[in-house]
Amino acid sequence: MAQTAEPPSGTRDFLAAEVRRREHAFASVRAAFERYGFEPLQTPAFERLEVLSGKYGDEGDKLIFKILRRGEHAASGEADMALRYDLTVPLARVVATHGNRLPMPYRRYAIGSVWRADRPGKGRFREFTQCDIDTVGSTSPLADAETLLAVNDGLVALGVPQFRFEINSRQALHGLLDAYNVPEQLGGRVLITLDKLDKIAPDAVAAELVDRGLARDIATGLVADLAADDPDRVRKQLDATERGRAGLAEVDRLLRLTASMPPGRVAFVPRMVRGLDYYTGPIFEVTSAGFTGSIASGGRYDGLVGALGGPDLPACGGSIGIERILSQRDDAEQGGAGLDVAIPVLSEESEPTLLALAGELRAGGLRVGVYLGSSGKMAKQLKWANDQRARFAVLLGAREQADNVVTVRDMHSGDQRRVPIPEAATHLREQFGG
Amino acid sequence: MAQTAEPPSGTRDFLAAEVRRREHAFASVRAAFERYGFEPLQTPAFERLEVLSGKYGDEGDKLIFKILRRGEHAASGEADMALRYDLTVPLARVVATHGNRLPMPYRRYAIGSVWRADRPGKGRFREFTQCDIDTVGSTSPLADAETLLAVNDGLVALGVPQFRFEINSRQALHGLLDAYNVPEQLGGRVLITLDKLDKIAPDAVAAELVDRGLARDIATGLVADLAADDPDRVRKQLDATERGRAGLAEVDRLLRLTASMPPGRVAFVPRMVRGLDYYTGPIFEVTSAGFTGSIASGGRYDGLVGALGGPDLPACGGSIGIERILSQRDDAEQGGAGLDVAIPVLSEESEPTLLALAGELRAGGLRVGVYLGSSGKMAKQLKWANDQRARFAVLLGAREQADNVVTVRDMHSGDQRRVPIPEAATHLREQFGG
Repeated sequence: MAQTAEPPSGTRDFLAAEVRRREHAFASVRAAFERYGFEPLQTPAFERLEVLSGKYGDEGDKLIFKILRRGEHAASGEADMALRYDLTVPLARVVATHGNRLPMPYRRYAIGSVWRADRPGKGRFREFTQCDIDTVGSTSPLADAETLLAVNDGLVALGVPQFRFEINSRQALHGLLDAYNVPEQLGGRVLITLDKLDKIAPDAVAAELVDRGLARDIATGLVADLAADDPDRVRKQLDATERGRAGLAEVDRLLRLTASMPPGRVAFVPRMVRGLDYYTGPIFEVTSAGFTGSIASGGRYDGLVGALGGPDLPACGGSIGIERILSQRDDAEQGGAGLDVAIPVLSEESEPTLLALAGELRAGGLRVGVYLGSSGKMAKQLKWANDQRARFAVLLGAREQADNVVTVRDMHSGDQRRVPIPEAATHLREQFGG
Repeated sequence: MAQTAEPPSGTRDFLAAEVRRREHAFASVRAAFERYGFEPLQTPAFERLEVLSGKYGDEGDKLIFKILRRGEHAASGEADMALRYDLTVPLARVVATHGNRLPMPYRRYAIGSVWRADRPGKGRFREFTQCDIDTVGSTSPLADAETLLAVNDGLVALGVPQFRFEINSRQALHGLLDAYNVPEQLGGRVLITLDKLDKIAPDAVAAELVDRGLARDIATGLVADLAADDPDRVRKQLDATERGRAGLAEVDRLLRLTASMPPGRVAFVPRMVRGLDYYTGPIFEVTSAGFTGSIASGGRYDGLVGALGGPDLPACGGSIGIERILSQRDDAEQGGAGLDVAIPVLSEESEPTLLALAGELRAGGLRVGVYLGSSGKMAKQLKWANDQRARFAVLLGAREQADNVVTVRDMHSGDQRRVPIPEAATHLREQFGG
């Protein structure tokens, strides 16, 4: 019992208050995405195993929850399905499946559970919600800009108080390597190390670059310029190479197209790399005081849909770290929603009248609870009404029944008022402005 | 590719129109349940295997999707988790896990996916949504009545035009066996056969009863009374036995407590059995013209929560067959939601102005799409606006730019109007009453 009584490791039960809090957050983000014309998509919890296998690298593959074959094949111990690991591979599969039914470009949002057999830890779950927007089938820089704008609106809708988009471009990063004469074969490793400049001291980063085989003078010059947090120093260098100029043009166009956001909301950060090597164009990360790392990210990944099994289409998108944002919120929430009207039950004879009244109130949209316990005592039932945080209680005792009235009790003030039964529903609805 | 391009057998991708249709239906039902004070609950997609095993009989056990152990244990071919098969076992587990955090009685609704490895077929899926309400911890007949009332409101909210609650009671069924002198050891099988009276001719049912060992005169008498569809004939028989009287009292109280529903909405149907033997009190099924079988069902099952691994608490509940109801609906729905405003892009210089205008319109709640394709041709972009079912299009060409105006085109009438750029957002919002 003790063992089975807990939800599986790394998963959570969401009771009423948490469901409401989460659904409210999801609804806010959905509304923001809808205003951009993004359309909702829901895919199955699991996919064929071959759709997921080999898409997440060796480490990722180990974290996939695989589903055992069924029936006579169960004894084989083999899996044929797997729980989805992200929302991007299912998107690629959907574009392959429904291509001609989809508008092009296909702009979809998805807010849904994914499952990863990570070691559970503080804020790290095995079942968690991802929140993605993607535009498949457009090379327009407007699509990149709208990704940032929609993510911005989503974060604002979630109530994140302060945040900043750090933007860069894969082209600009290539230009950076060209400008500083980083040997081609060291490029990837150099970028991975430079990405640590937001966490590690510049000296340590330079030392790691040297360890990785970069000449010391190049390493120190590169790190000095990037750590200066003065994009103009780097801009000058980028401007001297072809790929650098192309990257700068990409970055500047994105800055221009997102200029309607508050000043300082979007900044060119030349050292920002993003680990994932499938990005092909502009990239972004969103940072916010109070959060380490990023709370949203994304970019252009023109080859990815094809690589994931979909057709070869350009694409860009972004993802909001909605679980991180939710986990940062005030957890001291109230229990469930309170009742508008609580109805104690003091006798069996009164039951049909009370249920009929409850029905009238509910038809008017009020949230009404009827006492379902076994106590016949008024005091105990009023305590129940209080525990339910009811705004009003309706009492129908023997005396009230004789007079064909109910007593309406204001649970905040304790004031009581006798109201004829036929008028009770109207009277109560008026208390709620209805 | 051909194989991997389909979602797994028995599962579905929900594109925009279907997501909207389903979410709208779920929201309507949720709102109905909320008015009764039912609270939302969300549990993980999977549970520990031992929580699910042995709960659904041999046939059910075979249909459970089991999840392979991970890491070094993957090679064992063993499963340790399983996708949830219904929402009732997770409820029992939640009551065991969170008992003292839950209000008592605990009244929860759950609308969520369950997974069953059934052979897929028309209207039969391996991933589908269940829609349950349950009250745990109350023996009050009001709890049974409120289950029916809430299911009624849910069905009305779903737009089911006509339906009827058939109610009965396990006690009344026991009384029926007593009244007709059915030998104790034949009771269960006799009830299972009687349940077929809504599908099979009375003669055939009587014959099957005889096959099962019931004396011919008893079988024909029982079937004749039940098939007559005249509850009074059976009432007289029930009234002659102790369990029959107890059952009738249960049924009559439920009829009295649900009398606020439209006439004929609830009917005592003495032959209605419900296959599942965990019911202990009143039971119900909802039938509707246009549907074979039931579209909702439930009852009281006081021993079930304990038997499923939870504490020993009384409980009652109901379930709406929401997938059946959704599948019956008109499928000839439109595509996604149309745009309020479509914004063609005729030059790179106009982009920042257009995105800023789009931002203003979205801040006012409008759904705005910006052209993300590669054509520079006005005709092609207007076709796009039309395909998006946009209400208005905003055009900013070279001439407009020189005059600092946009052309607002009514996509229904084709009327065009020049509006100064600074007034464009206000002008358009006014068209939508904002």
